[in-house]
Amino acid sequence: MESVLKDYINTNQQLFDSKVKSYFEQLDIPTELKKSMLYSLEAGGKRIRPILLLASYEAYATEVEKTYSSLVALEMIHTYSLVHDDLPAMDDDDYRRGLLTNHKVFGEDTAILAGDALLTYSFEIISRDPLLSDKEKVYLIQYLSKASGPSGMVAGQILDMEAEKTQVDLEQLEKIHALKTGELLRFAVTAGAYLGNATEEQINHLQDFAYYLGLIFQVQDDILDVTGDEAKLGKAVGSDETNNKSTYPKLLGIDGAIEMKNHYTEKALEHLRKANADTDKLLQLTNYISERDH
Amino acid sequence: MESVLKDYINTNQQLFDSKVKSYFEQLDIPTELKKSMLYSLEAGGKRIRPILLLASYEAYATEVEKTYSSLVALEMIHTYSLVHDDLPAMDDDDYRRGLLTNHKVFGEDTAILAGDALLTYSFEIISRDPLLSDKEKVYLIQYLSKASGPSGMVAGQILDMEAEKTQVDLEQLEKIHALKTGELLRFAVTAGAYLGNATEEQINHLQDFAYYLGLIFQVQDDILDVTGDEAKLGKAVGSDETNNKSTYPKLLGIDGAIEMKNHYTEKALEHLRKANADTDKLLQLTNYISERDH
Repeated sequence: MESVLKDYINTNQQLFDSKVKSYFEQLDIPTELKKSMLYSLEAGGKRIRPILLLASYEAYATEVEKTYSSLVALEMIHTYSLVHDDLPAMDDDDYRRGLLTNHKVFGEDTAILAGDALLTYSFEIISRDPLLSDKEKVYLIQYLSKASGPSGMVAGQILDMEAEKTQVDLEQLEKIHALKTGELLRFAVTAGAYLGNATEEQINHLQDFAYYLGLIFQVQDDILDVTGDEAKLGKAVGSDETNNKSTYPKLLGIDGAIEMKNHYTEKALEHLRKANADTDKLLQLTNYISERDH
Repeated sequence: MESVLKDYINTNQQLFDSKVKSYFEQLDIPTELKKSMLYSLEAGGKRIRPILLLASYEAYATEVEKTYSSLVALEMIHTYSLVHDDLPAMDDDDYRRGLLTNHKVFGEDTAILAGDALLTYSFEIISRDPLLSDKEKVYLIQYLSKASGPSGMVAGQILDMEAEKTQVDLEQLEKIHALKTGELLRFAVTAGAYLGNATEEQINHLQDFAYYLGLIFQVQDDILDVTGDEAKLGKAVGSDETNNKSTYPKLLGIDGAIEMKNHYTEKALEHLRKANADTDKLLQLTNYISERDH
């Protein structure tokens, strides 16, 4: 990774962590619930979604305080989806990022409720951010609820489950990932650009960029599950094969998957150029997501 | 039940059902997900929360269309909490309202996701209601997310779970129910009064009213679990005893529980009078909730 990007990611991971702390300090809730919510929210993770949101905002504006509630809300929604995904009734994972999953530590009942609470609290913190206008709050909540709800991320999860029982083609695979991963990434860049007062045309190009970025993210995930290093990933490789998941390597072979990733990257960068802004960070982040080893 | 109230409830249950249909018709999502969401949302239920919201609105205003998104959002959040509550890792219930619970029909994985989707969609439909101003949307979302999230309903559920492992006193029992049941009822009357342009003082009295109404609701629930008719309830009685739940009859005996209900009812009606509006329907609903047999 280029060291400028490395610094940018590190700095903003720290910024993110401090914002999480401040949003939870003011939250007077049962101890066990708070512990469980924070356990998964602070369990590392690359913070790719909030950093994308921030990079997208900084392509157009500078007062980053306006993004704080969205950064935390977005990562809380991503985190809730992981907590529920890991449950025995879903993927039944004991470890994530090298740590025990939420239900292994707190029990299934608390994990289900902690996920519900993370999801609900995300809408609360946007709705009461004093730095946002009512119009901005409504825009963000409308977009975020659609991206994460039954016509967004949850739809992707259902389709993904159904795909385990059958053989899907490339088109279906793209649809699943566009919903399951892509919608939240699209929210990230859209929210950043919107808060930064980008034009509608710029926002549209960034949304197309994010669509491809989501696919790059997923194909690299699939590739790492075949060729990755368990120590770096913090989880076992080969689980897609074991769980009979539909993946890019399974459909296209490893070389085909890499070729497809390069195709998606070209498309992503094309839309990034058309968004016509200071998008250095977004460019570097795209390459990072495409080439990451964990 | 007085027949005027019966008509009012029947009419508005039908209104509610037709609004649910219209919000789901426009929703292009995976079939199994939609089926699972609608299964629980349409599984009967008394619709007490939306009817309270409507009665509170009608105490101050007449254009009921303004309440539709809130009615459906509120009941979707109540429904999601039931779907998750019934899961094997939580209360492990096979039946609710005489029907198989969601996970018994659709599987645990789909039930978890359907609950998540109901919760998320509720914020979406308020955020894009064309009849509401941005200010109104933000007010409703702020209140609803707080009432249902980690400092509201979810907190109540966690405390309720913890109470099963210990003996709680009356004060703790009230706190649990104020959070678990009361917060959503408070949202119902507050949202109705707010949309009907009630004054802040009126809204404050209605919130106090709703606090006691929530307790009435719960003590009657506890009483029915001891003395109720299984056929009318659509579920087994005596489950609180079996699950070692902290209840009013357990703490106070049946007579003590009934006395406490009468005390709560007096307090509720006192605040209702102070809200100083045409609150006939709210008065009748209070008596109905206090004396219901299912």
